[in-house]
Amino acid sequence: MQNFTLHTPTKILFGEGQIAGLANEIPADARILITYGGGSIKHNGVLDQVHTALHGRNVLEFSGIEPNPTYETLMKAVELVKKEKIDFLLAVGGGSVADGTKFIAAAANYTAAEDPWHILQTRGAHIKSAIPLGVVLTLPATGSESNSGGVITRKSSGDKQAFMNPLVCPRFAILDPVTTYTLPERQIANGVVDAFVHTVEQYLTYPVDAKVQDRFAEGLLLTLIEEGPRALKDPKNYAIRANVMWSATMALNGLIGAGVPQDWSTHMLGHEITAMHGLDHAQTLAIVLPAMLNERKAQKRQKLLQYAERVWNLRDGSEEQRIDSAIAATRDFFEKMGVPTHLSAYQLDGSSIPALVAKLKEHNMTALGEHHDITLSDSQRVYEAAR
Amino acid sequence: MQNFTLHTPTKILFGEGQIAGLANEIPADARILITYGGGSIKHNGVLDQVHTALHGRNVLEFSGIEPNPTYETLMKAVELVKKEKIDFLLAVGGGSVADGTKFIAAAANYTAAEDPWHILQTRGAHIKSAIPLGVVLTLPATGSESNSGGVITRKSSGDKQAFMNPLVCPRFAILDPVTTYTLPERQIANGVVDAFVHTVEQYLTYPVDAKVQDRFAEGLLLTLIEEGPRALKDPKNYAIRANVMWSATMALNGLIGAGVPQDWSTHMLGHEITAMHGLDHAQTLAIVLPAMLNERKAQKRQKLLQYAERVWNLRDGSEEQRIDSAIAATRDFFEKMGVPTHLSAYQLDGSSIPALVAKLKEHNMTALGEHHDITLSDSQRVYEAAR
Repeated sequence: MQNFTLHTPTKILFGEGQIAGLANEIPADARILITYGGGSIKHNGVLDQVHTALHGRNVLEFSGIEPNPTYETLMKAVELVKKEKIDFLLAVGGGSVADGTKFIAAAANYTAAEDPWHILQTRGAHIKSAIPLGVVLTLPATGSESNSGGVITRKSSGDKQAFMNPLVCPRFAILDPVTTYTLPERQIANGVVDAFVHTVEQYLTYPVDAKVQDRFAEGLLLTLIEEGPRALKDPKNYAIRANVMWSATMALNGLIGAGVPQDWSTHMLGHEITAMHGLDHAQTLAIVLPAMLNERKAQKRQKLLQYAERVWNLRDGSEEQRIDSAIAATRDFFEKMGVPTHLSAYQLDGSSIPALVAKLKEHNMTALGEHHDITLSDSQRVYEAAR
Repeated sequence: MQNFTLHTPTKILFGEGQIAGLANEIPADARILITYGGGSIKHNGVLDQVHTALHGRNVLEFSGIEPNPTYETLMKAVELVKKEKIDFLLAVGGGSVADGTKFIAAAANYTAAEDPWHILQTRGAHIKSAIPLGVVLTLPATGSESNSGGVITRKSSGDKQAFMNPLVCPRFAILDPVTTYTLPERQIANGVVDAFVHTVEQYLTYPVDAKVQDRFAEGLLLTLIEEGPRALKDPKNYAIRANVMWSATMALNGLIGAGVPQDWSTHMLGHEITAMHGLDHAQTLAIVLPAMLNERKAQKRQKLLQYAERVWNLRDGSEEQRIDSAIAATRDFFEKMGVPTHLSAYQLDGSSIPALVAKLKEHNMTALGEHHDITLSDSQRVYEAAR
């Protein structure tokens, strides 16, 4: 096991009806800004629940945070925060709203002379303060509700980049599985794929004899494989939605990644596809991961064998066959979730691959993966294999 | 899954050499009291490491906190804390030192007119403030280093009781597996048994379709079964000690118990044995658990079958046979760890059983377990079966 620091200070309130207790988690005199996306929380009643819970409090709203939240939109919220002297942000939505709100929280404390895009350029390392925030989660997927990271897109330059800082970690996160009942099938499928790939990025690397972390990661993968397809078929089954929701949070709160090597190359290649072509984040992961695992069979050999046995119960055949079957099973799982795994399924013919590789180079993604040895030409091969 | 609140704010610093960073975790102007036990940290160099890390800081010491820490000893520390205006407590040791330090932290803010035994009588519910504390852990076992609970014994009355309050949750915990190399075999064995039973108390109840929590609990049990005996045979193997240490913390930081029913009857029956006869905490758990599982086969049937299959890989035979084999395997595991599972092995002939049951009654332990239906006569039968 590698040395690690693990700090998961976000207070989780999980279960049906927990939104009603929201006011207890926010200082009584706070000037609160509710941030959200396209308005689905208006139609499914979640925004009403939030307002009821915050009755009598000082509350404003900012809506319109998009999937893959943009710098351009978020800077409008920053302006509002400064003008209205907001001192608590409440993100109501999925990972994009949470990520965007983290950016707002940090950017609002930048002076007028500084451009907060600096936050992305420095990966969050120079954030000195942030407005406190909480999350009411309505889409299980990114884990952003209880971690310190975010991913922001700048439309003007076609960049999608990540930042991380403990100062933007949510104070609390309310997870009520009922809020997910009305999600479109595509969003719950994306969420399951996203949580699955988050887990894989922290698990399928090389062994460091971290038995607890391995078992926990395998437990999440087994749960997502079992519950993912059922969540599509039976959208109002509370137990299934609860298991998916809790898996997604656990997949990226730091726990399973503590003390183990991490990969994240699939995410980096995926971000470029989203930034250039607008595909959903999870769609890009479903495209890249099987191709990446195939490319990295040698480096990931031992963990791929463990994955084959413990997650997919593959015990027969040669080692090579078991590894290939595990990768094929992973691809099948994504397809079964309704998330296609080839660029062609999204009407992309691969002609943009050189441009995607150029963007990777521009973002210094020239030595990816747990061994920092995935070169641009390796990435190009992965994109090609994913056509 | 049941509704839950989960808050694990303790910052974990895990790995070899982490004690060196101790000073970063404590305010620079703090008046620090190091609390510890019988002095083993003097012989194995841990106390020296702590003092080196805190060089130049305002530091006092209080030693002599016993296994099953007593009110009588801890009140002497409380006196010192008040006299010296201590404002940060640093527990260096195992669960007893951590538990005792939590009591000191809360009791020091009681007025002279109040008796802090009140903390135990009210199970911690009325604690209004506490001195902040951190832990340098040297014995993986209780999980006390990152939770809000403690167990205190009062010698004068032969009571051993638990309390819990978020205000006594450690700010940080430093876990360096190397500090465990010099532990006596009995202590590491006790620690493994303790962590195992903590996990069982939160897992072997009745199913609520909490798949992540089940998988995590099973992962801890599998790890302890695999690493426990190896930790005895190969005491300076870093990877093994690291896995045991991390398992013990994860077993009782709130994570695996969030959203699931909990039992704790084995602990309650065990506490009375320790209070009356002075047996090690883990010894009492090893005595009580197999007898308790046998007594509660009907109520725990579904989870016992799951435990048999997933943890002990028992798939053949009737359901009854698999359950019996799983209970037998549990007993064998404790015996293999060198922790006997019958009262007789500790020179106790069972004649004190009526007195133990009377103590349970005195402590209102008349409706134990996840169904609150374990009566005093059930408990008596468990004690008898454990002779």
